Amino acid sequence: MLEVKNIADLKQKIKDLKAENKTIGLVPTMGFLHEGHGSLIKKAREENDIVVVSVFVNPKQFAANEDLSNYPRDLVKDSAYCRELHADILFIPDADEIYPAGFNSFADIYQLGDNLCGIKRAGHFRGVCTIIVKLFNLIKPNRAYFGQKDAQQLAIIKRITADFNFDVEVIGCPIVREADGLAKSSRNTYLNSEERKAAAIINKAMQTGQKIIADGEKNTAVVLEKIRAIIESEKLARIDYLQAVDLENMQDIATVKNNTLFATAVFVGKARLLDNFLIENID
Amino acid sequence: MLEVKNIADLKQKIKDLKAENKTIGLVPTMGFLHEGHGSLIKKAREENDIVVVSVFVNPKQFAANEDLSNYPRDLVKDSAYCRELHADILFIPDADEIYPAGFNSFADIYQLGDNLCGIKRAGHFRGVCTIIVKLFNLIKPNRAYFGQKDAQQLAIIKRITADFNFDVEVIGCPIVREADGLAKSSRNTYLNSEERKAAAIINKAMQTGQKIIADGEKNTAVVLEKIRAIIESEKLARIDYLQAVDLENMQDIATVKNNTLFATAVFVGKARLLDNFLIENID
Repeated sequence: MLEVKNIADLKQKIKDLKAENKTIGLVPTMGFLHEGHGSLIKKAREENDIVVVSVFVNPKQFAANEDLSNYPRDLVKDSAYCRELHADILFIPDADEIYPAGFNSFADIYQLGDNLCGIKRAGHFRGVCTIIVKLFNLIKPNRAYFGQKDAQQLAIIKRITADFNFDVEVIGCPIVREADGLAKSSRNTYLNSEERKAAAIINKAMQTGQKIIADGEKNTAVVLEKIRAIIESEKLARIDYLQAVDLENMQDIATVKNNTLFATAVFVGKARLLDNFLIENID
Repeated sequence: MLEVKNIADLKQKIKDLKAENKTIGLVPTMGFLHEGHGSLIKKAREENDIVVVSVFVNPKQFAANEDLSNYPRDLVKDSAYCRELHADILFIPDADEIYPAGFNSFADIYQLGDNLCGIKRAGHFRGVCTIIVKLFNLIKPNRAYFGQKDAQQLAIIKRITADFNFDVEVIGCPIVREADGLAKSSRNTYLNSEERKAAAIINKAMQTGQKIIADGEKNTAVVLEKIRAIIESEKLARIDYLQAVDLENMQDIATVKNNTLFATAVFVGKARLLDNFLIENID
């Protein structure tokens, strides 16, 4: 596995691979890799000649009050994990390689970024869109892999990829969970043991929501109220948002239909944890 | 010369050309081509295997109060002119091919777009940046050609191309002028014969400014005042802006140095006319 820090080296390597007509699968990450990332790397490994993993804690997608400086990092472990999963290239740029002096451009999206995490994290999706445009131009992937845990991010990246005419297939992969249902996340490391136990309530509540819908409930307000009550029964949990939205435009929706996304962000201790489920194949 | 309206056809053609390792020069235009555009096409012809000209009156770069619906169009003449100059591909998409239903993404820039035309034309550079990202992704040019007449646009496109890591060389070409010095522009067609005569004052004033600087004046306020007085001596001319800025960041500058851009927009009748000169190679 090749570790690349510099853009010039990366560009040369990608140019060589393109000249050999290799297909490239990209897994963009912020590092501190877990089995959720692992599932993306494995899928990329199955579907492409070359797998590139990027590890970059993107300062532009953190709001001013957020955990940029504390975000967990372990490049040695990440590198070993990528090697174990047979990635070909690990791109690990410094921030000033990605955003040199004078950097002034950005990419962003209307509507899809105006709800859920977009309200709570000012500038977050602008940062996400900007780094994705850069990574797509640098790595020229045929396919790029993202987790469904960040469902709004996935929808936004799909939209901007189509809108900007990138020749990239954006592939969403299922949420990978711990045994008790908690979605795997680098931020789970913020939880102490009591908080870690309490965090299981989030997915337990979401599963109840799914069951109510499977049993016929179509009113999103009713479903959300049930989920809310369960999460709020846990004293260590504080809901940041809990909403039902149309996956197409991320706007709130009153009646459950296909492509309704139920999404929540819940604080447990210092950790802000995401979970969601998508309604598909209902009558 | 191939005329292409659809993105699917364009992408296939570009894919074929890339497979043959052809270099591509792109000349993005809004049509109603004149010798200014012609100079870009000729330069692209000299430097690339394939020349693509795009003609697209981009609605997103017109502010609400502007001349989108009246903007001059003559596709028959444009096509003949591109053929005469040996362009290979003329890309002439409809607006809904470029911005289909659900289109929600944009590219934009901080600082460089906040002055000059950026103040006067709300959203203009956001529209420019967005279409350029799309055209670069669709056409994958090795080089793209723009006129120095739109000096701020050129600086912004250079910046976003670098910031977004596009593998495109952005090339600025000198202003092409009428015999009396008026910069060639599709919008000159708005001028009646009296206005057309009056419009010559703009470049006359700018030439005087250049001469004053050549004679040793370093205070931009003094230079601007001389230019302003000359333009204002023409009753049909109304200055929209007249400023001296640093080409690097488009911010106003008090003392002339290398890469000082003197830029003006002047209304003559309905036409808003641009002119500028750049200071280079002074002590």
